[in-house]
Amino acid sequence: MNRREFSGLTVAAMAASVLAADSAPAQELPKAGGQFAPIHDRRRPEIAILLYPGLTLMDVLGPQTVFSISANVHLVWKSKDLIVSDTGIGVRPTATLDECPANLDVLLVGGGPGQMGVMQDPTVLEFLADRGSRAKYVTSVCSGSLILGAAGLLDGYKATCHWTGRGLLPLFGAIPVEERVVVDRNRVTGGGVTAGLDFGLVLLAKLLGEDVAKMTQLAMEYDPQPPFDAGTPKKAGKELTKQVLDWLAPMNDRMRQVLEESKKQTRR
Amino acid sequence: MNRREFSGLTVAAMAASVLAADSAPAQELPKAGGQFAPIHDRRRPEIAILLYPGLTLMDVLGPQTVFSISANVHLVWKSKDLIVSDTGIGVRPTATLDECPANLDVLLVGGGPGQMGVMQDPTVLEFLADRGSRAKYVTSVCSGSLILGAAGLLDGYKATCHWTGRGLLPLFGAIPVEERVVVDRNRVTGGGVTAGLDFGLVLLAKLLGEDVAKMTQLAMEYDPQPPFDAGTPKKAGKELTKQVLDWLAPMNDRMRQVLEESKKQTRR
Repeated sequence: MNRREFSGLTVAAMAASVLAADSAPAQELPKAGGQFAPIHDRRRPEIAILLYPGLTLMDVLGPQTVFSISANVHLVWKSKDLIVSDTGIGVRPTATLDECPANLDVLLVGGGPGQMGVMQDPTVLEFLADRGSRAKYVTSVCSGSLILGAAGLLDGYKATCHWTGRGLLPLFGAIPVEERVVVDRNRVTGGGVTAGLDFGLVLLAKLLGEDVAKMTQLAMEYDPQPPFDAGTPKKAGKELTKQVLDWLAPMNDRMRQVLEESKKQTRR
Repeated sequence: MNRREFSGLTVAAMAASVLAADSAPAQELPKAGGQFAPIHDRRRPEIAILLYPGLTLMDVLGPQTVFSISANVHLVWKSKDLIVSDTGIGVRPTATLDECPANLDVLLVGGGPGQMGVMQDPTVLEFLADRGSRAKYVTSVCSGSLILGAAGLLDGYKATCHWTGRGLLPLFGAIPVEERVVVDRNRVTGGGVTAGLDFGLVLLAKLLGEDVAKMTQLAMEYDPQPPFDAGTPKKAGKELTKQVLDWLAPMNDRMRQVLEESKKQTRR
């Protein structure tokens, strides 16, 4: 990266964007990329993130925040009507499936309770199979890897998933790996929910180099210091893990049922 | 926590919510709390998060995700019209300022380029001063602490901020502390952007105990493994830090100007 160009470009653009933000109307429609000035002077990668009702917004907002300074991030769904996340956040897609660029640098799918509907929806699975067939990177966070699997995009690939769903990956020919971010050829998959941040930085470095990734990490002050050490079943211990598994059991049981159903329907 | 009650309660409720999520209509309006079953059987704390055009959604989505399983999380703004975040995400508030519960367990404010408008808006500052006067915890993530300061809520309190804005805290009588999460009496402030996750778990433990916080951490698989170690200026090194500072300089300059202006107007 040319550092001199970097600074000159961004300071001017940032000044403009800051002044614009000051008086941004509440009604403005969302657009890919957001308000920030670019932090590099190369082509902005085209990134599509699938939205759907009942997704875990945090799965994809970590990566969206990581990417949005440097890339055009499209939030795609079947319509531009508001969708509601699993935690009750109403979010507006920026593009329909048809409007999504045909050739993507990154296709990203997150997980969430609503994914069971998605994995049974031929329109969405065909969209993913199509864009995934040409995307530079085919990626997921959390149990989004099971959606990729249902779309036939993980057959023969190593992948990860939310820890509660990792064991379901072989249903679609994927090889489960117990790591936070798994890279196998052009498939990049992240673990559960918060793994999206680590995933995003790994992928950003592949797209635009380590310097851009590190600057983004610093801008997001990503120097994690969890007050407890309970982020994996091993670290949380048997008792707490059982509580969380019991809590998620109905969703996991339903997930396996839907997966086995959608597996039958998938063109492999 | 009574573990037996915990499991019985949540499995049944989760089953219901999973079935509901399966067929959730895209048009459903967002509501506080989301789709998840509770993971405790106590009173759900009432939490209000301020939304505004140009906020950094990630500042508050980390905590929102942490809290939403266990609490009623209200996303409040002057109207329920869509607001657009700094990275281009359109989000729907769940309550107006008037509709926000009068007595809150937590008042939370995040930062973002749009906060300069908020810090000059007497309606919002009065809302914050009012709810903050009775809230059990008055809190912020990132440069949201400067909004709390502008509302007169940090005078004499230790606090933190995004690293680029920490030096501005004394403008409002706050004492800047270089820590990821700072607790001073009932003020709890987190550092930049991603610090919202650590902040959220610290606060959740205060509200509902360590077990609930640890179960939430496990459910979110929060076992961070950043691929680089560049999350603070010290760790990123001088050169990368200068690049990010140059990139953010116009916003910071404008921020200081707005802060000094709003300080004059604040009733202290």
